[in-house]
Amino acid sequence: MTLGAVHVAGAGMIRFGKHPREVTLETMGANAARDAMNDAGVTSADIEAMYVGHVFGGPVAGQRIGARIGLAGKPVSNHENYCSSGATALREAWIAVGAGLYDLVLVIGVEKMTDRIKGGVQPDPGDLDAASGFIFAAGHALSARRYMSDYGATREQIAMVAVKNHAHSVMNPYAHYQKPVALEEVLTARPIAEPLGLLDCSPISDGAAAVIVASPAGLRKLGIATAPRIAGCALVSGTVQSGLGDVNEEDVSRRAGEEIYRLSALGAEDIDFVEMHDCFTIAEIVRLEGLGLLPRGEGARLTEAGHTSLGGSMPVNPSGGLLSRGHPVGATGVAQICELFWQLTGRAGGRQVENASTGLAYCKGGSVSGTDGASVTTVVMTR
Amino acid sequence: MTLGAVHVAGAGMIRFGKHPREVTLETMGANAARDAMNDAGVTSADIEAMYVGHVFGGPVAGQRIGARIGLAGKPVSNHENYCSSGATALREAWIAVGAGLYDLVLVIGVEKMTDRIKGGVQPDPGDLDAASGFIFAAGHALSARRYMSDYGATREQIAMVAVKNHAHSVMNPYAHYQKPVALEEVLTARPIAEPLGLLDCSPISDGAAAVIVASPAGLRKLGIATAPRIAGCALVSGTVQSGLGDVNEEDVSRRAGEEIYRLSALGAEDIDFVEMHDCFTIAEIVRLEGLGLLPRGEGARLTEAGHTSLGGSMPVNPSGGLLSRGHPVGATGVAQICELFWQLTGRAGGRQVENASTGLAYCKGGSVSGTDGASVTTVVMTR
Repeated sequence: MTLGAVHVAGAGMIRFGKHPREVTLETMGANAARDAMNDAGVTSADIEAMYVGHVFGGPVAGQRIGARIGLAGKPVSNHENYCSSGATALREAWIAVGAGLYDLVLVIGVEKMTDRIKGGVQPDPGDLDAASGFIFAAGHALSARRYMSDYGATREQIAMVAVKNHAHSVMNPYAHYQKPVALEEVLTARPIAEPLGLLDCSPISDGAAAVIVASPAGLRKLGIATAPRIAGCALVSGTVQSGLGDVNEEDVSRRAGEEIYRLSALGAEDIDFVEMHDCFTIAEIVRLEGLGLLPRGEGARLTEAGHTSLGGSMPVNPSGGLLSRGHPVGATGVAQICELFWQLTGRAGGRQVENASTGLAYCKGGSVSGTDGASVTTVVMTR
Repeated sequence: MTLGAVHVAGAGMIRFGKHPREVTLETMGANAARDAMNDAGVTSADIEAMYVGHVFGGPVAGQRIGARIGLAGKPVSNHENYCSSGATALREAWIAVGAGLYDLVLVIGVEKMTDRIKGGVQPDPGDLDAASGFIFAAGHALSARRYMSDYGATREQIAMVAVKNHAHSVMNPYAHYQKPVALEEVLTARPIAEPLGLLDCSPISDGAAAVIVASPAGLRKLGIATAPRIAGCALVSGTVQSGLGDVNEEDVSRRAGEEIYRLSALGAEDIDFVEMHDCFTIAEIVRLEGLGLLPRGEGARLTEAGHTSLGGSMPVNPSGGLLSRGHPVGATGVAQICELFWQLTGRAGGRQVENASTGLAYCKGGSVSGTDGASVTTVVMTR
């Protein structure tokens, strides 16, 4: 590993949610990008390349966005890794800037979903499990049942993930949902795959998020003295489990943790706060445990005890997470980086994590069991 | 620019053409990848990451291929840049290996088209020109008319590009078409957009191509003493033209040339042979001129004179190019790299370019006018 230092110099987002049909993918991406560029004080002339993540945007979506913000002609890479598409774009930007190829690049995650997706996201064509009915919600319901059985966790403890994340995003002006949800509402919501109900599932959202990734020379060019550093950005793929066994011992999360701690030269004990891919309530708990951030089997109890709430010892999803900030799939990985950036620069307003100095983001794409295609990206950023 | 040396250690392809429905994208990609891995003598355990280019393969296509060749769990990036998707995947691999992040990676370009595309490829949704009827064939017909008018070139000279490329691919066992085509056949083929007929247009093909990209340490690990080097890999986007003007003075090709000569520290005069994105006959001529490889307005005449034929002073498309090797869009950019590799290692059989020591590949994706999204990748490889 010979990558140089890589920083985030600015961030921008549009509010996630259901946007009208006339608010196009190009408009959303351009608006988030402009905000990030203004935030960093960088002009389009100084942006050297674009890295764009999306799933459903169609061919050369990044170029279509670039043409709207004065970046026509710049190199554009479009990245697809399902729900971790935006995080994968960030990773390739981190490599290119760390390699010295560029000093200032723009990373965009974007997705227009509400126009095209009714009900849940369709599984990918090669996903034989999903074709047999083992869709995302079913997989996570199985995980919840097993977790409750193995560790004596309660339905209420799992539901508290949704209560916590909705409470956080009341203070996030970019969140899809910005009002508190009571435990009773989560427990009595329409069943989706028991024990999980509607509020245990992340919503279908439209959205866009963008960051400016910079080398030390790029920061100097912008007159920025210090900026949060990307200490590492890991990508692993493959199966959730390594063979038959406990669905809650996620092999892919364990490996994502090992890889990010190796790349960043930091350990689980160094992480102050987390942006976690809580596509379902139970997933937040299982993945925190998989990364070694919470002891195995303790996550549900610790959630109920407030350990992962704002004000707790390791806040998780101060932004509201996928459950409440929303989940425009290609945008999610970049939105997590925006949140890390705002937290590490003390600009997160009412949802600020006190003394935030090291944050971790985890983003997962692909099929339920991951037999064919799970893709997990982990990022650690320091102040 | 601080990238270390990057080499190609092996190549593999399946024959391009119309494959039966049951030959899936995953099967095609896996077969090409296995051939490349065998060619380099690398095991799946030693491959550290996959870079995959495709347009129509659906979410996490690379992971689905990886799972079939013992690469489940490895990092996978899926890249989309329309017809230059495979070339973009190669470029990100070049950056990652050059940065020292990996020593041995697998690059795959793959596309299954004949199942889903009847007639021509549909333009991208944001392409307003195409929506008004200015589709790919119409744009290149306009280019041909203007070229003939400006430079006194003849219809026959332009048609000779197809005659030449079909003659070359008679000697390419991976080509979609492997029989010669007479000038008269090109001239009398069904009109598509006059003056261009069916044989002036690249076909709809299925196919897959793969290469192993290696650092010097990666080569040592494989016991390979020397291997062709990727001297540079440029990516530019944007409009074909810079404002109103001559459609045949492709701004994007000029910039793609300037950037690759800068990155590779080589000039047009150093190029021995070319793999050119000849999606239409006239495009080969216009792009060679745009790169400064032929004098402006001389390309058609020089084609007729044999300058760009095997045995000529600068052979173009010894593989047969898109016109005759075929054009499975995401696979094309990697197939060009396979051809460069085989030529530079003296393994191109009957289509071998004598004393080939420096080759250039040019791949273009996106809309006709490129108003929104043209994407051009240029690669220079040396022996």
